[in-house]
Amino acid sequence: MKPGSTERTTIKRLAYKASNEQADLYSILDDNLVAHVGLVENGQPIVIPMTYGRSGNTLYLHGSTGSRLMRLLAENPNVCVSITELNALKVARSTFNSGMHYRAAVIFGKAKLIADSEKLTALDALSDGLIPGRNPEARPTTKKELAATIIIAMELDETSVKISKNEVDDPEEDMNLGYWAGIVPIKTIAAQPIPSDEESASLPVPESIKRFIERRQGN
Amino acid sequence: MKPGSTERTTIKRLAYKASNEQADLYSILDDNLVAHVGLVENGQPIVIPMTYGRSGNTLYLHGSTGSRLMRLLAENPNVCVSITELNALKVARSTFNSGMHYRAAVIFGKAKLIADSEKLTALDALSDGLIPGRNPEARPTTKKELAATIIIAMELDETSVKISKNEVDDPEEDMNLGYWAGIVPIKTIAAQPIPSDEESASLPVPESIKRFIERRQGN
Repeated sequence: MKPGSTERTTIKRLAYKASNEQADLYSILDDNLVAHVGLVENGQPIVIPMTYGRSGNTLYLHGSTGSRLMRLLAENPNVCVSITELNALKVARSTFNSGMHYRAAVIFGKAKLIADSEKLTALDALSDGLIPGRNPEARPTTKKELAATIIIAMELDETSVKISKNEVDDPEEDMNLGYWAGIVPIKTIAAQPIPSDEESASLPVPESIKRFIERRQGN
Repeated sequence: MKPGSTERTTIKRLAYKASNEQADLYSILDDNLVAHVGLVENGQPIVIPMTYGRSGNTLYLHGSTGSRLMRLLAENPNVCVSITELNALKVARSTFNSGMHYRAAVIFGKAKLIADSEKLTALDALSDGLIPGRNPEARPTTKKELAATIIIAMELDETSVKISKNEVDDPEEDMNLGYWAGIVPIKTIAAQPIPSDEESASLPVPESIKRFIERRQGN
């Protein structure tokens, strides 16, 4: 289903910010690194930051078999995942009309434990979610590591996408009183990598890392 | 109460990442811009990104009287607020040992609607939460705007703080096989402001905006 297809994913206030494009949803997921995962335990909300990966219309989350969150998700499968990209401050003449430029995706669904047979594919998606192409460059995952990892899948079927990029639009009565208004662009950048040891310092920086940084240049 | 003082805020796994310092909590809140706010509606979790402000040991969230989220919070006051700052990718020789450098705060509490008499103080904290010192430079808030704004307060009493900054620590058997490991620093930067119109272009950039950008330089 496209973003905004159900009652709870239909954006009613400032509806012009809503997107119904699957491409926008995928782009927000693919361009960002951290998701905030919400679930309910004994009637109380819990929100935890996690990395994630996407393959087709499936979102993957992972954790250690020893993690409390993974046990919680197994017992409380109703999940809401929120991914937000901040792009600018919109500074109006009044704080009331000020705001942000952002892209935000909210995903509702059920967390499902994936079968062992799907684990390697899912781990690939999770690795690509952080650093595309890193997996084949790294030391292969061992069976023991695979067994120690729990992976959860969610279908991207009930989602809501909001994109805010409006320019400042101060009312006439706020103009020409000497107040400033403007946009302050905000960006997440990556700096040059710091090799961890002598062996790494003697090796070329891996291609996946070079691409990751190039995509997030400061300028 | 200090971070990690209750059962659900005690970090058990990788406990060396936990901080019990109020100063760390305040620093994470003051250095970041977006919170992910989780609540429960009809047993289902909802996670929404919001800006926020802090004054002393109180966290403020705000929205329009017309917003669905504000109505939801009034009806479902149990809230979990999560604020995450991503600082680096930790790239190990294996994807299994790779991870992130981050600072994360998770806050549990009850959302309380604040009284009209506290609104102006709270709006100041909310404005400072985004751009410290902006409020006195902007056109003053009108009574009508104040009436159209709902502000919610949460005490910072039950919180959990996690700081991850470990260097790569690959096991001996992964060394000297030609695999690279290192840290890729990640940073949120602000670029030079773009004035919104001729009047703003003719005015100096406000001091609060200059400070905001200076604090988030690319280098």
